[in-house]
Amino acid sequence: MGIKIIGTGKYLPEKVITNEDISQHVDTSHEWILDRTGIEQRRIATTESSLDMAAAAAEQALQGIDKDSIGLVVVATITPDNITPSMAAMVKKELGLERAIAFDINAACSGFVYGLWIAESLMNTALSQYSKDGAPKRALVIGTERLTRVTNWEDRETCILFGDGAGAAVLESDENERGILSTYIKNYDDVKGAIKCKANYINPPFWEDDLTPQPLFMKGRAVFKFAVNAIDEVTKGALEEAGLTCDDVDWFVLHQANGRIIQAAAQKLGQPIEKFQISIQDGGNVSSATVPMALYDLNLTQKMKKGDIIALVGFGGGLCAAAAIIEW
Amino acid sequence: MGIKIIGTGKYLPEKVITNEDISQHVDTSHEWILDRTGIEQRRIATTESSLDMAAAAAEQALQGIDKDSIGLVVVATITPDNITPSMAAMVKKELGLERAIAFDINAACSGFVYGLWIAESLMNTALSQYSKDGAPKRALVIGTERLTRVTNWEDRETCILFGDGAGAAVLESDENERGILSTYIKNYDDVKGAIKCKANYINPPFWEDDLTPQPLFMKGRAVFKFAVNAIDEVTKGALEEAGLTCDDVDWFVLHQANGRIIQAAAQKLGQPIEKFQISIQDGGNVSSATVPMALYDLNLTQKMKKGDIIALVGFGGGLCAAAAIIEW
Repeated sequence: MGIKIIGTGKYLPEKVITNEDISQHVDTSHEWILDRTGIEQRRIATTESSLDMAAAAAEQALQGIDKDSIGLVVVATITPDNITPSMAAMVKKELGLERAIAFDINAACSGFVYGLWIAESLMNTALSQYSKDGAPKRALVIGTERLTRVTNWEDRETCILFGDGAGAAVLESDENERGILSTYIKNYDDVKGAIKCKANYINPPFWEDDLTPQPLFMKGRAVFKFAVNAIDEVTKGALEEAGLTCDDVDWFVLHQANGRIIQAAAQKLGQPIEKFQISIQDGGNVSSATVPMALYDLNLTQKMKKGDIIALVGFGGGLCAAAAIIEW
Repeated sequence: MGIKIIGTGKYLPEKVITNEDISQHVDTSHEWILDRTGIEQRRIATTESSLDMAAAAAEQALQGIDKDSIGLVVVATITPDNITPSMAAMVKKELGLERAIAFDINAACSGFVYGLWIAESLMNTALSQYSKDGAPKRALVIGTERLTRVTNWEDRETCILFGDGAGAAVLESDENERGILSTYIKNYDDVKGAIKCKANYINPPFWEDDLTPQPLFMKGRAVFKFAVNAIDEVTKGALEEAGLTCDDVDWFVLHQANGRIIQAAAQKLGQPIEKFQISIQDGGNVSSATVPMALYDLNLTQKMKKGDIIALVGFGGGLCAAAAIIEW
C-alpha cells in the first residue's frame, strides 16, 4: 500500500527577532550571522503555545480533508508545552480528530522524518485492525517547537540559530500511488557530546537536585561534520533502497539547521544547490518543524510536479538521522 | 510473524520513601495511604538518573541476549533526563547497541503498551529493510520515570501516589511463536482536564513567560472513572481482536496507578483479583514504567507457564489507554 503526502501546513509565530535584535543582546552582527548561517530572522512564540502552532499548521494541512478519516496523530517535538498530555493528544482534542490515536516522539531534529517512518509502518499494519467502521486511511505528522525556551541566550555561537514554529503533513493510504518509496533511519552514538540539553524539573522534599537550568549546548564543528556525513549516508541509503540515485531526485528538503550545512551536503551529494529547498532565512533552526515547513514552502512555489522525486532528510541530537524518498 | 517477549527487567532506586516519611511532610498517615491506594512505599531516584534506571532495567532484560541483535530501542517516558538526546539514544550508547534505531515516545502511563504496539509494527515492516547483514530481529521497549520531579508535594491527594523507576522488555520476531496476539489502542479527549502537568523552560531575552512550576495536577474521581471504563474497553477490544474473552486470560498486568482502580477493573471485567499482578505496594505509580516492572514481578513468581494468555493494560494522561494480549 502506498502512503502519500496529500497536505502540508506551516505556522511561524508573529513576533520576529532580527539579527539586529540579537546583536543588541550578544556581540554579533547581521552580516556575521547571515554569512555563517543563512539566517536573516527567526520567530519567537509569545502569544502562541506549542499546541497553538501545531494546531495551526495541522489545520492548514487538513484543508478539505475529512477529520474523521484521521486515524493517527504523531507529534515530533523536543519542547512540548506539557509533560502530559502529549502534544498529539492536545492536537487531537483541539481539532476534533475523534478517531485518532495520538502520541509524541522525540528524535530531535530528525523527529518529523522518524514520525513519517513510524506513521507509514502503523498505517500499513496496526491501524488497519480498527476496521469495523472502515479503517481510517489518513495520518497527521507534525513537528512543533519552541526552541527559544531552551536556547542559551548568552552563547553567541548558538543563540543566533534557533527559533519557534510548526509544520505538518497529512498522509494517505492509496493503493494506486507509490508515495513513500523508502526510508532510511540511523542512530549514531554522540561520543563527543556534540548536542546536549537538560530537561528542567522541580525538587522533591526528600532530595535536592541542582536545578540550575542547562540550556542547549552544541559543538558547532562536530555537528557540522556529523551532519554532512549523516545526510550523505541516509540519503544514499534510502535512494539505494528505492533503486534510485541522487540524480533521480528532483527536490531535496533537508532539516534547516544551517545554510552552510545544506551547501556542504549538496556538494558532497554532487547535486546543484538549486534542487535544495532553502527556508532557513526566515525562521532559523526549528528542530523537528523545519522539514515539514520547508516542504510546505516548496509546495507553495508550485515547482513540484506530480511524479517528482523528493528526498526529506533530518539529522540532529542523539545523534540521529533519517531520509525518506517520496514520489510526489 | 509473531513478536514475543523474551526478557524482562526492572530497576527501583535505592532510596525508599515510606508513608510515614510522607506523613511528616503533609497531613496523612500510613493507614490512610495504604487503605486508599495500596501503596506502602515508593522510591526516589537520588544518585540515579532516568538513564541509569533505564539502562539497569534493560541490562537485566537483555541477559544472555546478543546486543547486536537489537534493531530498535523505544523508550516511553514523560520525565526524560534531557530534551535532547532522547533517553533511547542514551540507552543505545550506554549499552553498546550498535545496530539500534532509537527514539522516545510520550503516551503518559500507557507509554509502554504504545511502545510495544509501535515496536511490533516496525519489526513487522520497516526494520526488515535493513537486511543486508541480516535484519536485527529484536527490539527493546523501556519505560523509565522520575515522577518525584513533577509531583506536587504540597497536595496530599496526589503526592502519596508517585515514585521513580524503570522497566524493560526485549521483543523477538519468531515465525514459530504467536507472541503478541492483538493490541487495542485508544485516545480519549481529556475534556475535564483530569491529568495535567506543564513542562518547565527558561525565558528568552525578548519575552517573559511565567516560569512558576506547575507540577502534576490530577482530579482523582475523574481519573478513577475514566480508568475503570478505559481498562474495560481496551481490554475487551484487544481480546475480541484475538478471538478471546476475559475468561481466557490467565494474568492481567495493569498499569499500577492505584490499588483501588485495579480492584474496580477486576470487578468490571468479572475476573478474580488473583489473576491481577499487584506490584504497587513497593513502588507506587511510576507511569510508563509500571507495566514492564509488574510483568517482571509476575515473571519472577514463575506462576506464568508457556502458552499462558496475558493482558498488558495501560491508561493515563491524554487521556489514553492501550491493551496488548500476549501468548507467553
